[in-house]
Amino acid sequence: MPYRAPISDYEFLFKNVVGFDQVAETERFAEASSDVVSAILTEAGKMCEQVMAPLQRPGDLEPARLENGVLRTSPGYAEGWNAIAEGGWIGMSGNPEYGGMGLPMAVTTAVNEMMSAACLSLQLAPLMSQGQIEALEHHASDEIKELYLPKLISGEWSGTMNLTEPQAGSDVGALSSKAEPNGDGTYSITGQKIFISWGDNDFCENVCHLVLARLPDGAPGTRGISLFLVPKFIPDENGNPGVANDLKVVSLEHKMGLHGSPTCVMQYDGAKGWLVGQEHKGMAAMFTMMNNARLGVGGQGVGVAEGAYQHALAYALERKQGKTPSGTIVDHADVRRMLMEMKADVFASRAILLANAVAIDMAQATGDADWAARAALLTPIAKAFGTETGIRVAETGVQVHGGMGFIEETGAAQYYRDVRVTAIYEGTNGIQAMDLVGRKMMDGGEAAARLLDEIEAQAEGARATMPELAGPVWEATESLREATEWLTSQDDMTERFAGALPYLRAFARVLGGHFHLAAALADPDGPRAKLARFYINALLPEHAGLLAQAQNGAKDLYALSADELAV
Amino acid sequence: MPYRAPISDYEFLFKNVVGFDQVAETERFAEASSDVVSAILTEAGKMCEQVMAPLQRPGDLEPARLENGVLRTSPGYAEGWNAIAEGGWIGMSGNPEYGGMGLPMAVTTAVNEMMSAACLSLQLAPLMSQGQIEALEHHASDEIKELYLPKLISGEWSGTMNLTEPQAGSDVGALSSKAEPNGDGTYSITGQKIFISWGDNDFCENVCHLVLARLPDGAPGTRGISLFLVPKFIPDENGNPGVANDLKVVSLEHKMGLHGSPTCVMQYDGAKGWLVGQEHKGMAAMFTMMNNARLGVGGQGVGVAEGAYQHALAYALERKQGKTPSGTIVDHADVRRMLMEMKADVFASRAILLANAVAIDMAQATGDADWAARAALLTPIAKAFGTETGIRVAETGVQVHGGMGFIEETGAAQYYRDVRVTAIYEGTNGIQAMDLVGRKMMDGGEAAARLLDEIEAQAEGARATMPELAGPVWEATESLREATEWLTSQDDMTERFAGALPYLRAFARVLGGHFHLAAALADPDGPRAKLARFYINALLPEHAGLLAQAQNGAKDLYALSADELAV
Repeated sequence: MPYRAPISDYEFLFKNVVGFDQVAETERFAEASSDVVSAILTEAGKMCEQVMAPLQRPGDLEPARLENGVLRTSPGYAEGWNAIAEGGWIGMSGNPEYGGMGLPMAVTTAVNEMMSAACLSLQLAPLMSQGQIEALEHHASDEIKELYLPKLISGEWSGTMNLTEPQAGSDVGALSSKAEPNGDGTYSITGQKIFISWGDNDFCENVCHLVLARLPDGAPGTRGISLFLVPKFIPDENGNPGVANDLKVVSLEHKMGLHGSPTCVMQYDGAKGWLVGQEHKGMAAMFTMMNNARLGVGGQGVGVAEGAYQHALAYALERKQGKTPSGTIVDHADVRRMLMEMKADVFASRAILLANAVAIDMAQATGDADWAARAALLTPIAKAFGTETGIRVAETGVQVHGGMGFIEETGAAQYYRDVRVTAIYEGTNGIQAMDLVGRKMMDGGEAAARLLDEIEAQAEGARATMPELAGPVWEATESLREATEWLTSQDDMTERFAGALPYLRAFARVLGGHFHLAAALADPDGPRAKLARFYINALLPEHAGLLAQAQNGAKDLYALSADELAV
Repeated sequence: MPYRAPISDYEFLFKNVVGFDQVAETERFAEASSDVVSAILTEAGKMCEQVMAPLQRPGDLEPARLENGVLRTSPGYAEGWNAIAEGGWIGMSGNPEYGGMGLPMAVTTAVNEMMSAACLSLQLAPLMSQGQIEALEHHASDEIKELYLPKLISGEWSGTMNLTEPQAGSDVGALSSKAEPNGDGTYSITGQKIFISWGDNDFCENVCHLVLARLPDGAPGTRGISLFLVPKFIPDENGNPGVANDLKVVSLEHKMGLHGSPTCVMQYDGAKGWLVGQEHKGMAAMFTMMNNARLGVGGQGVGVAEGAYQHALAYALERKQGKTPSGTIVDHADVRRMLMEMKADVFASRAILLANAVAIDMAQATGDADWAARAALLTPIAKAFGTETGIRVAETGVQVHGGMGFIEETGAAQYYRDVRVTAIYEGTNGIQAMDLVGRKMMDGGEAAARLLDEIEAQAEGARATMPELAGPVWEATESLREATEWLTSQDDMTERFAGALPYLRAFARVLGGHFHLAAALADPDGPRAKLARFYINALLPEHAGLLAQAQNGAKDLYALSADELAV
């Protein structure tokens, strides 16, 4: 499964589609010139191609395992982690004061996407560290920052997130892990956490857990939760890993995919922890981590989609069958249809992802509330559409391979198995959709309306030169606007939630049309315009059915009783 | 994973939706009264619930394996096969003269669907035998029929289909297996075949292979292919398995799912075979087998969809989370959306499947060419939509489970992995779609138009009582009619093939609307009408986007060169 990093696609998107120039023009990111960014992406791409891609299959065949309580990672993963760390790819957007590169999120997002395409199981490890770095930068005390951030950024230590408990899945507020003050400023953490990605490894000196737990005086629900940093080994006076903390990996999950990534059940038995942020304000700190993690998971979907697309295309170009001009299946109309759908959606989902990252960067660099609102609006779309694209493209990749797609040796099936979880973790896609129509539209749909205005303005501007592309994009946007107004006029949130996911999908379809149109405008006689034409003619029309479902309300969903559902 | 056979759903469909009464009114199937059919379905359902469902997970955990050339099946599979055989479920539609029950295909289809829901890996074994029984009944000599059919129908022997070769996948005409006449009426078969489902087992006395091969004077391509029956053990003068034939299982495939079903590479080294049908007319005989196998595979998709739906619903009804009336996730709007989509599509795909089977039965019972054309038209739709429904519903089932869906112990993942192959084997869904817009519309779309007339007539009739359901069905049908006319007016087949799969999906959506409307008419104030309302409001609108893609033609698909696809 050779993987080729799509550097020229990022360059094109940065320059022509997602407005990265604005980021590079800010003082905060003044060093991120297009030359610098290209050099960084090229370097990261090489590492992905040469170091990470060869680890994809070994991780599947020889999963991480627990031997007498010691976690053993898949063959080559330690070397892979070291290469990621040495390249500086963990702390790309980390604060330079602590060894980070201080790069824009857009660049980190592109690199994360490439790493996901090359080897999703391993990429999840630095993604977890990145989330922890971000949370500590925003919420931890200076003492913690100085001790932990350099180690996390260098990759000597790794980071994890501990939210889920058996009885508290998506409902984090139901957690029962406890924290008791020790009287010396530290806390004693007790409880069990499940689904902890990379809860341990055998290639870092220390593993640092961010754990949500409730203090004795914590209120029930999410408002009584605090966040603690709980290291595997307690740092000694020199900041080196000292005595083992009272925590352990109880077991690893047996999963459908992502075998190289150990998914741990963690047990904390009075483990020593340090408060991050304020008491009872753990959810706020966790949200910092989760928002970027959601963007990161969206990028995992896009990355796998790219990997699966390249893999299927390579097969289609070499598989001889039937009497076609090339003699291979790439000339068959339905194979073409599949490849074009894959490619057009990789582009659309990547553009949404990078536009989201650009909005995060602009918000950070300018402090502008509109940019922050744009970033917040796009995050659930980037997460859900990115991961659904990953799943759909990987599924289509299996189909392109015909019978060989079902055989594990081919590799198509692994993409399909691995990527499936991305629609579930970091908030299921259903929760993303509820976030979109709920929290992200508490402004009455203002941020959404601003974005739709921009989309229509671009389409208006393109009417003269590309009427057959601009027209459908404009009309789809109008339909989306109507649906948005209908949704935001529903005070009963159940009415909104009933159509939330189809609405999110339609929003993504329209955004895809917008970005494809931007690409066509920049490359009017080239392949970008041809791909845009296919997307707008063949895939954008899907929005109509989705918007009908989005506005159907809750009545039909609840028409059947539980008993009637079962008959 | 308990499974409950949906007997009442079949009874409702037979009576109110797919017109099974017509079948029971024919002389050929006069014995298939509704009481008899109900008793048969109930009996089969019990076997599926009690014997087959418990074999689902063991087959996944302990796959069939090859030990020193001997095939060992999964634990309990031998007992499972015996129960299927003893119930008479292999030869349900087989000729009573040879021990079959002579039942309508509609009944067999329902039973096959239940067996698929309970344990897909094992169900594939009797499905292969059924195909062979059908092929021999139609094409074999009386001598072969008398020798083989009783054994196949009783389950003492099993049957397989051998089409695919490494260099000849979907392009069967490219095969290179050879047959040499032995001069005594038998033939010597040499070649390698791949992807042979249940190519061997350890619970039948004999395994009978139907093998496509080319005689020395066979023309190249599909017109020079002949069909041979090649048993594992050559029957002695008493018809008992005698000396071993010159064939063997070389290896088993390592697959993403369906682990309990051994997928064999078969090697024939001058194995003794008997001609079935005429020399060089093997494809015609094979098509008999394939057409019903396609219906059978569509039923596999529907069955897995039912199994995955029941499994997800059970989880949703017991998983406590959040503040809902029931305290469980079944009350969350997005979980409801998923469950309703699953249930509505199980119904739609099952109705299409059974309507197809009814058309086959009517064609057989009456010899009416219109019924034969109806059956031929519906087969690719039933296969492709049934299997896509299986995949989509299983995928949604994983999602309903949240994080637990990705954990193998839960069972949701197995449905997802197992069912994936159904969109590929027995002709990929792309090939089904080409069959629909190509071969099945050689009549200029006449058979399709007749069906659309019926759909519109029902909708017209329902306008008075259910205008809000009848209207959208009528309009969707008109859109489908326009698309059908557009497609059939394209002389360049590539233009048709370019939109073939979206067209097939839209056709299925409209048929689903038609059958849901029929159900609503029969149960206007009950749960059937409520489910129909959801389908017609929320899912039927998808046809619009699909039909836009169906009529987009080939130009966009071929706009990018192979090099441009890769950039």
